[in-house]
Amino acid sequence: MRIALLGGTGDIGRGLAFRLARDTDHELVVGSRDAAKADAQASAYTETLRDRGVDATIAGSSNELAVSGADVAILAIPPYHVGDTVEAIRDHLNSDTVLVSPAVGMQGDEDGLQYHPPGAGSVAKHVADAAPDDVPVVCAFTNLAADRLADLDDDGEQDTIVVGDDTEAKARVTTVVSELDGIRALDAGPLANASEVESLTPLLINLARYNDDLSDAGIRFV
Amino acid sequence: MRIALLGGTGDIGRGLAFRLARDTDHELVVGSRDAAKADAQASAYTETLRDRGVDATIAGSSNELAVSGADVAILAIPPYHVGDTVEAIRDHLNSDTVLVSPAVGMQGDEDGLQYHPPGAGSVAKHVADAAPDDVPVVCAFTNLAADRLADLDDDGEQDTIVVGDDTEAKARVTTVVSELDGIRALDAGPLANASEVESLTPLLINLARYNDDLSDAGIRFV
Repeated sequence: MRIALLGGTGDIGRGLAFRLARDTDHELVVGSRDAAKADAQASAYTETLRDRGVDATIAGSSNELAVSGADVAILAIPPYHVGDTVEAIRDHLNSDTVLVSPAVGMQGDEDGLQYHPPGAGSVAKHVADAAPDDVPVVCAFTNLAADRLADLDDDGEQDTIVVGDDTEAKARVTTVVSELDGIRALDAGPLANASEVESLTPLLINLARYNDDLSDAGIRFV
Repeated sequence: MRIALLGGTGDIGRGLAFRLARDTDHELVVGSRDAAKADAQASAYTETLRDRGVDATIAGSSNELAVSGADVAILAIPPYHVGDTVEAIRDHLNSDTVLVSPAVGMQGDEDGLQYHPPGAGSVAKHVADAAPDDVPVVCAFTNLAADRLADLDDDGEQDTIVVGDDTEAKARVTTVVSELDGIRALDAGPLANASEVESLTPLLINLARYNDDLSDAGIRFV
């Protein structure tokens, strides 16, 4: 499988690149609006992984090239840039590529963060609205802490929730998630249920703020 | 401590009554709009607990009498009745009683449930708006499955999240929660953060619908 990490130079992209490179055999491409930056970051990731004995090769390119021919394209992008990014790659998308939305809109103050979705109701739905109709969209990876993903010494078990309207697309993403050590994929139904999944992210950040031992906490449904 | 379970004749009230009676020494009063129904239900709970070797005495009364002098009053009531109930008990409330909101507004269809808060933004905030200004309100118990609470053979560990603006009130509720076997109380900050806590309930119901082994699942933050 070819997996594109669009915006893969950011925190969540870095963590996912490390885990995907270490735990799967998929072809990985880091995308960015700036191809040179993507290339440099991909080389840095490869170097870090090799220092840890993980023999991986991660490519870097523009978002447009990264998504071309991808089986899965992960939009590891701040929520307010997601629409523009989908617009930019639109001509390179088709029904063979599953778009994955891990971003969450939040706002708040010093006391905590609250879920703040775009007008579509969730970032995932916003992505689906911006993408061509035949491109399947799946919400996943929202509740995984970026720093914890990037910490390859962390092997704690945690769950991530997958929602989407296209059964085959959801199964493809679930397969990828299930290959990551310690991470379990759970189905929560169609994309209409995405906002409750995205709401977990501000909750996790609030729990980290008010509980000393819950920094970068994950979730287990038991 | 005197704990009132308003609407204690329903599913979540029953589960909380069983756990509080089994695991704490607090005085328990089940409240209902119908005092005779509350009394009958309280007797039935007491009987069930005694059959299991738990020597508890649970009283039953009108909601108004139940809340009078209570240190903690749990609004175990459907979300669309919460406002009316707070209105009905308003003259019996004062700053010595912590009102606890475990209810969650939801709507949906056969594919899943979505979070549907009242106009105030959360049921907990709706309660705070309806209660006298000096009565502290705490959101807690939202994510605990009623059937699992009522199953005294279930000793699995799970978390519940506590939010509120009054530190002393939150500490009082946290103390009560912490006395329940297997249940950990986690602070997620002020009442403004309640909607992300309440959103867990439809998510849990969706997960139960799409995963065979997650019926009445709880949450652990790890």
